[in-house]
Amino acid sequence: MRIIIINGPNLNLLGKREPEIYGASSFEEYYHALKQKNNDVNLAYFQSNIEGELVDTIQQADEQFDGILLNAAAYTHTSIAIHDAIGAINTPVIEIHVSNIYKREEFRHKSIISSKCVGLIAGLGLKGYQLGIDYFKDR
Amino acid sequence: MRIIIINGPNLNLLGKREPEIYGASSFEEYYHALKQKNNDVNLAYFQSNIEGELVDTIQQADEQFDGILLNAAAYTHTSIAIHDAIGAINTPVIEIHVSNIYKREEFRHKSIISSKCVGLIAGLGLKGYQLGIDYFKDR
Amino acid sequence: MRIIIINGPNLNLLGKREPEIYGASSFEEYYHALKQKNNDVNLAYFQSNIEGELVDTIQQADEQFDGILLNAAAYTHTSIAIHDAIGAINTPVIEIHVSNIYKREEFRHKSIISSKCVGLIAGLGLKGYQLGIDYFKDR
Amino acid sequence: MRIIIINGPNLNLLGKREPEIYGASSFEEYYHALKQKNNDVNLAYFQSNIEGELVDTIQQADEQFDGILLNAAAYTHTSIAIHDAIGAINTPVIEIHVSNIYKREEFRHKSIISSKCVGLIAGLGLKGYQLGIDYFKDR
Amino acid sequence: MRIIIINGPNLNLLGKREPEIYGASSFEEYYHALKQKNNDVNLAYFQSNIEGELVDTIQQADEQFDGILLNAAAYTHTSIAIHDAIGAINTPVIEIHVSNIYKREEFRHKSIISSKCVGLIAGLGLKGYQLGIDYFKDR
Amino acid sequence: MRIIIINGPNLNLLGKREPEIYGASSFEEYYHALKQKNNDVNLAYFQSNIEGELVDTIQQADEQFDGILLNAAAYTHTSIAIHDAIGAINTPVIEIHVSNIYKREEFRHKSIISSKCVGLIAGLGLKGYQLGIDYFKDR
Amino acid sequence: MRIIIINGPNLNLLGKREPEIYGASSFEEYYHALKQKNNDVNLAYFQSNIEGELVDTIQQADEQFDGILLNAAAYTHTSIAIHDAIGAINTPVIEIHVSNIYKREEFRHKSIISSKCVGLIAGLGLKGYQLGIDYFKDR
Amino acid sequence: MRIIIINGPNLNLLGKREPEIYGASSFEEYYHALKQKNNDVNLAYFQSNIEGELVDTIQQADEQFDGILLNAAAYTHTSIAIHDAIGAINTPVIEIHVSNIYKREEFRHKSIISSKCVGLIAGLGLKGYQLGIDYFKDR
Amino acid sequence: MRIIIINGPNLNLLGKREPEIYGASSFEEYYHALKQKNNDVNLAYFQSNIEGELVDTIQQADEQFDGILLNAAAYTHTSIAIHDAIGAINTPVIEIHVSNIYKREEFRHKSIISSKCVGLIAGLGLKGYQLGIDYFKDR
Amino acid sequence: MRIIIINGPNLNLLGKREPEIYGASSFEEYYHALKQKNNDVNLAYFQSNIEGELVDTIQQADEQFDGILLNAAAYTHTSIAIHDAIGAINTPVIEIHVSNIYKREEFRHKSIISSKCVGLIAGLGLKGYQLGIDYFKDR
Amino acid sequence: MRIIIINGPNLNLLGKREPEIYGASSFEEYYHALKQKNNDVNLAYFQSNIEGELVDTIQQADEQFDGILLNAAAYTHTSIAIHDAIGAINTPVIEIHVSNIYKREEFRHKSIISSKCVGLIAGLGLKGYQLGIDYFKDR
Amino acid sequence: MRIIIINGPNLNLLGKREPEIYGASSFEEYYHALKQKNNDVNLAYFQSNIEGELVDTIQQADEQFDGILLNAAAYTHTSIAIHDAIGAINTPVIEIHVSNIYKREEFRHKSIISSKCVGLIAGLGLKGYQLGIDYFKDR
Repeated sequence: MRIIIINGPNLNLLGKREPEIYGASSFEEYYHALKQKNNDVNLAYFQSNIEGELVDTIQQADEQFDGILLNAAAYTHTSIAIHDAIGAINTPVIEIHVSNIYKREEFRHKSIISSKCVGLIAGLGLKGYQLGIDYFKDR
Repeated sequence: MRIIIINGPNLNLLGKREPEIYGASSFEEYYHALKQKNNDVNLAYFQSNIEGELVDTIQQADEQFDGILLNAAAYTHTSIAIHDAIGAINTPVIEIHVSNIYKREEFRHKSIISSKCVGLIAGLGLKGYQLGIDYFKDR
Repeated sequence: MRIIIINGPNLNLLGKREPEIYGASSFEEYYHALKQKNNDVNLAYFQSNIEGELVDTIQQADEQFDGILLNAAAYTHTSIAIHDAIGAINTPVIEIHVSNIYKREEFRHKSIISSKCVGLIAGLGLKGYQLGIDYFKDR
Repeated sequence: MRIIIINGPNLNLLGKREPEIYGASSFEEYYHALKQKNNDVNLAYFQSNIEGELVDTIQQADEQFDGILLNAAAYTHTSIAIHDAIGAINTPVIEIHVSNIYKREEFRHKSIISSKCVGLIAGLGLKGYQLGIDYFKDR
Repeated sequence: MRIIIINGPNLNLLGKREPEIYGASSFEEYYHALKQKNNDVNLAYFQSNIEGELVDTIQQADEQFDGILLNAAAYTHTSIAIHDAIGAINTPVIEIHVSNIYKREEFRHKSIISSKCVGLIAGLGLKGYQLGIDYFKDR
Repeated sequence: MRIIIINGPNLNLLGKREPEIYGASSFEEYYHALKQKNNDVNLAYFQSNIEGELVDTIQQADEQFDGILLNAAAYTHTSIAIHDAIGAINTPVIEIHVSNIYKREEFRHKSIISSKCVGLIAGLGLKGYQLGIDYFKDR
Repeated sequence: MRIIIINGPNLNLLGKREPEIYGASSFEEYYHALKQKNNDVNLAYFQSNIEGELVDTIQQADEQFDGILLNAAAYTHTSIAIHDAIGAINTPVIEIHVSNIYKREEFRHKSIISSKCVGLIAGLGLKGYQLGIDYFKDR
Repeated sequence: MRIIIINGPNLNLLGKREPEIYGASSFEEYYHALKQKNNDVNLAYFQSNIEGELVDTIQQADEQFDGILLNAAAYTHTSIAIHDAIGAINTPVIEIHVSNIYKREEFRHKSIISSKCVGLIAGLGLKGYQLGIDYFKDR
Repeated sequence: MRIIIINGPNLNLLGKREPEIYGASSFEEYYHALKQKNNDVNLAYFQSNIEGELVDTIQQADEQFDGILLNAAAYTHTSIAIHDAIGAINTPVIEIHVSNIYKREEFRHKSIISSKCVGLIAGLGLKGYQLGIDYFKDR
Repeated sequence: MRIIIINGPNLNLLGKREPEIYGASSFEEYYHALKQKNNDVNLAYFQSNIEGELVDTIQQADEQFDGILLNAAAYTHTSIAIHDAIGAINTPVIEIHVSNIYKREEFRHKSIISSKCVGLIAGLGLKGYQLGIDYFKDR
Repeated sequence: MRIIIINGPNLNLLGKREPEIYGASSFEEYYHALKQKNNDVNLAYFQSNIEGELVDTIQQADEQFDGILLNAAAYTHTSIAIHDAIGAINTPVIEIHVSNIYKREEFRHKSIISSKCVGLIAGLGLKGYQLGIDYFKDR
Repeated sequence: MRIIIINGPNLNLLGKREPEIYGASSFEEYYHALKQKNNDVNLAYFQSNIEGELVDTIQQADEQFDGILLNAAAYTHTSIAIHDAIGAINTPVIEIHVSNIYKREEFRHKSIISSKCVGLIAGLGLKGYQLGIDYFKDR
C-alpha cells in the first residue's frame, strides 16, 4: 500500500503559524511519528507553496500511489487547476483540513476541490491524516 | 468511553434508499458490526425523522456521553435548532455524512451545523462512523 | 387503486384560515365528498403540523399506495427532509397547492420538493386533489 | 363552453424533440383525441414561435373563450409581454407544462406568467391539457 | 418637424386594460387629439406586440423622423434587441411610460433601453407624449 | 386577561446554555416570579423543541388567550409553518427574543415570523416577557 | 433617572403622516402624557430631520443621561454615522419603532443600528416608548 | 398656481461641475429665464446640500404649493428620509434629473424616491423643469 | 455540403451600425465574397429581427443543411426559445459573434444558447463565418 | 502650499471613542503637533457630523487649497453626495482612514468615494495625515 | 509569420484525461501534425501547470511572435495575472478552448481573460488551434 | 532598519505596461533612487510572477526584516495563500498599489490581503513606496 501526503501553501509553517488553530508541532515531527505507526504503508510526503507544483505532483502520483491525502490549504478555496488534476487521475484522493474550516472566515467554507475527491476529513487536527490512512487500508 | 450515534431523517431507509449513493446494507446491520468491533466502547444509537427529537436527544446526551457522532442528513442544511443544541452542550460532536455531499445538489454543499462541531467526516461511507469512534478513543 | 392524501401544516385550519385565499369549507368536508365521488378508489388521508411525521408517512406509504397527493404547505419551501423522503420511495407523488402560490409572498414561489415529484397542480382550489386522482386513475 | 389551447415556441416539434422528455406523439395527434373525448366543448388550438403572436392571440381570445390553456414553453421564463396580456383580459388562463420544469435547467424553474394565471399544471404530460379542460368544465 | 410614436405590446388595449393604472381612453382617441393640438408637427404612429417589428420600425424611422417617442411597454425590461436598434440609429429617442413604473412590480423598475435614449418621461399619463413632442420642438 | 408564553427550541436550557448571552437563571424560575408579579393575569407556559408542536400550540391558543408571547428561538429564522400559524389565528402575538439577535450571527438577523406579529421586543433579557405582558394589559 | 427620547426624520409629522400606520396623535401630545405618567424620571426630547444633528445629540447625551430611546426612523436603515455614534458612547440605547417595520417595505426590514443598541421594541405603537422607560427604570 | 423647485446636493455648482454632463449655465440663470417664461405661475426655488434640510423644505411645502419639482441629485439614490417626506405630504412631486442617469454609474440607475412621486423626467436637460411646470399647469 | 448562415436582430445594419465595433462593410457584400470563396459549399443566408422567425428558420434547417452558423446577436443573451430550437434539431450549430462580446457591456458576456451549440467563435470579425465554414468542411 | 483636513462624523470623539481602534489622543492634540511639524504648510481643519456640511466645505475648498485630506468616516461608505462633490472640484483629494477598515465590519470594506480621489491611505493611524501632507508637498 | 501556442494546467494530460470531453490524442501528436500542415508558419509551443510561468511566457512572447494562441485551461476562470499580462503586451492573443466550456460546470462559463484577447474559439476540438492560425495568417 | 519590497505579477513590466496608468519609469530605476534617498535603511527587493514564490519570500522575510512593502498586483484580488502567509508571520506588512485600484475594473476594488496587513497606500504612484518606508521609520 503506497500513500502520498500532499500539503499546500503555508503548511510548512505548521507549529509556528497560528498555533491556537493548528497546534504547536511541525508537520515533519508528525510525519515521522506517522511513518513509525504505519510501517506497513509506503508513505511519501510533498509540500509546496506553488499551485502548479501541487498540480504536477498530483498528476505524477497517478497510479504510482494507491491513495492521496491532500491538504491544499488556501488553494482549496481558489484552485480549479487542482480540481481538474484530481479529476484527471485514477488514484483516489481524500481532502484533509487540520482545522475546522467552517469555524473560520466565510471564504474558507467553500471548497472547490471536494467534488472530485472521495471524501473529506476536517477539524480533527493532525489526527485527520491517520484517519485517512486507515480509510485507505480498510478499503 | 461512551459514544452515541444520532442519525437524522431518512437514514432509517439506508440500504433501501438510493443504494448507488448510500450502499446496500441497512444501518442496523452496520451498527451491529460496529458494536462487535468496538467492544471497549459503550455505544448507543438513535434515529428520528423529527428535527425536534434530534434536538431533545442532543440535549440529553450532554455529559452522559463522551462523544456524539451526528449525521443530521437533510437537517444538516436547514436546522438552526440543531446548531444551537450542539452549541449549548459540552460533549463534543463530530458531523458525519455517508455520501460526499459536495458531489450532489448545490443545497447539500452548505452545512449549518459544522461551525459548532469539532470536525467533519464526509464521503467515506459507513466507514466514517468507525473513523469518528477512533478519533474519540484517541483524543 | 390506493391513493393517500398527505396534508402539511395549518391545512387542518382550512375553512377557518384566510378564507379569501383557501375558501370556506374544511378539508374534512371536502374529503368526505371526494370519497363519495371516487368510490372506485381506496382513499386515505393524513395531516400533521410536524415535518418529521410527514416524512414518516411518506416513507410508510411506499408500495402501500399507488399514488400520493402531497400538499406540504409551508414545508414545501423549506423541507429537504421531505424532498429526500419522496426521492427515497417508489410510489409516485403529485404536489398539490390549493392557492396559486405564485400570487403570494416571494418565499412561496420556490418549491424544494417539486424536483422529486411527478408533477404539480397549483391554484385550482380543492379541485386540484380531484385532478390528481384523475391523473393517477388514467396513468 | 369554449376553450382555446395556445402553445408556444418549439411545441410544433412535439413528438420529434427530446422524446424522452416530451413523449413521442405529436400535438396534432393528441389534439385530435382530445376533441373526440371532449365533444361537449368547443375546442380551438393555436401555436406560434413568435412571442408577439401569442400576445395577439391571448388578447383576441378575451371574452371569445371561457378558458385558455396556455403552454408558453420557453417564453414562460422570459416574457413580460405575455404576463401583461394575461393580466389585461378577463378570460381565465391555466398555465400548462408537459414536462416537470423543476427537474430541468435552473432557468426553467421560474415562471414569469404564473402570477397572472388562475393556476398551473406541470409534469403530468399531455394529460395536463385534459385536466385543465376538466377544471374549466367543473368551474 | 417629423415625429413618430412607437408603442409596444398590449398598448393597443389602452382604455380597456387595467384602467386604474392606464386611464380609460384608448390610445387612438388620444392620438387624434394630439394631432389636432400639434398641427405644426408631422406625426406618425405605430403599434405592435412583436418585438422584432418594433426593431424594424425603429430602424426604418432613422433619418425619416426628427424624433421618436418610444413606449416599449413590457419589452422595456427584457429587450436587448430594441436597445441595440436605438443605439444603431441617429434619430433621438425619448422613452415614455404612461404609468409610474417604479410604483409597480420589481421587474418593471429596470429599463434595458434607457441608456441608449436621450431621456425618459414616466408616470405623467398620456400627457407624457405631449411633453416629449414639446421637447423635440424646443430642441 | 389570559396570556400564554410559548418558547421554542433550546430555551429549556436557559440558565445552562451560553449564560454570557442568556443569563444564569432558568426560565422556570423566571416564570414563577412572573406569575407572582402579574397575579391579575391568567398566565400559561409551553415549551417544545418540535416546530410542529409550536404550530399546534399557537393554533390551539387562538381565542383561548388574549395574547401570545412567542419566543420561537431558532425557528424564528427558518419556520414558514409558524409564520402561517400566526397568520391563521386572531389572538395577537408579540415576538420576544432574550438576546439582541442583531449582535449575533448573520442568520439570526432575519425573522420570518415578524411580519405576522403585532410587534417585537428583543435584547432586553427576560424582562422582555414582562414588557410584553404590560403591552397586552394596556391595550 | 434621566432619559432622553431622540426622534429622527418625519417623526415631527406624527399624527399627520400616514395615520393608518402611525396613529392620529402628534408626538408632542404623547410626550406630554408620558411626562405626567413618569414624573419620577427626568425626561428630555429631541427631534431632527438632519442625520448629523442626531449624531450630535447622541454624542452629547453621553453620561448626561442614563438611557436613550432612539427612533431613528428612515436613518435606521441607512446611517452608519448613527451606528458609530451609539458605539462611541457609554449610555445605553434602546431602538424604538412605532410601526412594525417588518410588515412594510423590504428596505425597512434591515436596521443598521441594532447591533450597537441594547435592544429593540417595534410595532407596539407609541406605547413602545413607555416600555423603554420601564426597562431603564427596572435595570 | 404655486410651484416650488427643490434642488439637492452639488446642484449649486451647475454650470461649473462636469459641464459635458450638466451644461454650462448656472441654475440661477436658468431659473431667471424660467420665471419670465412662466409668469402665470408663482415659482419658488430652494437648494441645499443637507439631506435633512431637503426633508424640512418638502414638509413645509405641503399645501403651500400645488406642485414640487424635486431634483434630489445624489440623495435620489440613498435617502429613505426624502422618500418618507414625499409620502407624508399631499402636494404632488415630480422627480427631475438633468442628465440621463441611466447612462452613468450603476449606482445612479436606482432611485429610492420614485415610488412616492407622481412621475419622473430624466435626461432632458434643464428643459425638464419646464416640462414639469407644463404638466402641473395642465393637470 | 450545405451550410446556412442565420443572422439575428440589427445585423441587417452591418456596415452602418457602430462601424468602430462591426466594421464598415455590409453583410451582403461579405456574403457575396464568401460564396465566391467557398464555391464547393451550398451556402444559404437568412436574417430577421423577429426572435420567432429565427426559431422557425432553425427548425426548418434541420436535416436540410449540414451545418448552421448562427449569430443570434441580441437574442443570444435573452432567448430560451432559440436555445430550445437548437436543442431540438440534429444539424450542428456554431455560434458566431463578429465583435468580442466580452469587451462590451456586462449583459453581453453571458450567452444563453452556447450550451446547445457545438462551439463558439467570437471577436474575429466577419472572418469568423469563414472559420465556421472551414470547421464544417473539415469535420 | 495650502492643505485642508476635513474630518467626518464621530471623529470629534477621537481619543474617547474605541481607543483600541483609534488610539487615545484627540485629533486636536494631533493637529497641533502636525502644524508645528509642517510649518511650511498653510494647514486648515474642519470637522462636522453633518454630511451636507462636508459637501459645503469640499466645494468651498476648491481652488482655495492645493490639497484636501478627507477622512469621511462613516459617510465613506454611504455618501454619493460627497463622491459628487469631490468629482466636481479641481483640488486633489486623498482619502484617509485612521484604522484599517478592512479588518472591521463588512460594510466598512467598500468606499463610495475612492474612485474620485487621487488615492487612499488607511490603517496607518494618525500618521496617515502626515503621509498625505508629504505626498502633496512632493507632488 | 511566428505563432506560439501556450497551454495551461492539465493540458499535458490531453489524450489521457477525460477522453470523452477532450479526445484521445495527446497534444504533442496534434502539434506534430499542425507543424506539418502549416510549414509556412514558424510555430512554437509551451505548456505549464504554473500560472506565473504562463505569465512569464506571455510577457516574453511580446514582439517575438505575431500571434499567441492561449488555452489557459483552469486559469481561464481565475487568473487576473494572466489577464494583466495579455493587456500589457502588443502581440494579439486568441483564447482557445478544446471543449465547449458552456456545456460544463457553471464555474467554467466565465472567462476572466477574454476581455483582453482579440477573440475566442471554443468547443471546436483541437481543430480550434488550426482555425486560430488561419485567422492570424489572413489578418 | 531592514525593509523588503515585494512586487507581484507584471510589475516587472513597469514603465512599459499601460504607462498612462503606471507611469513611464521602470521599477528598477525607481528602486535605485529609493535606495539613495533612504541610505539609513537596509533595503531589499524581490519580484516574481509566481504566487507561490511570493508566499515563499514573505515567509522567509519573517524576522529578517522590520517591515514589508507588498504590492501583490493581480494576486491582491485572488490569493488566499498570500493572505495566509502574511497572517503567519510577525513582520508587519503594508499593502501598496501604484494606481488607484478603485478607478479601475470592479474586480480590482476588493483586496483579499488587506485584512492581514497593517494598512494600505493606493493611487499615490511610485511615491507610495517612499511613504511606506517613512511609516516604518517613524513607527
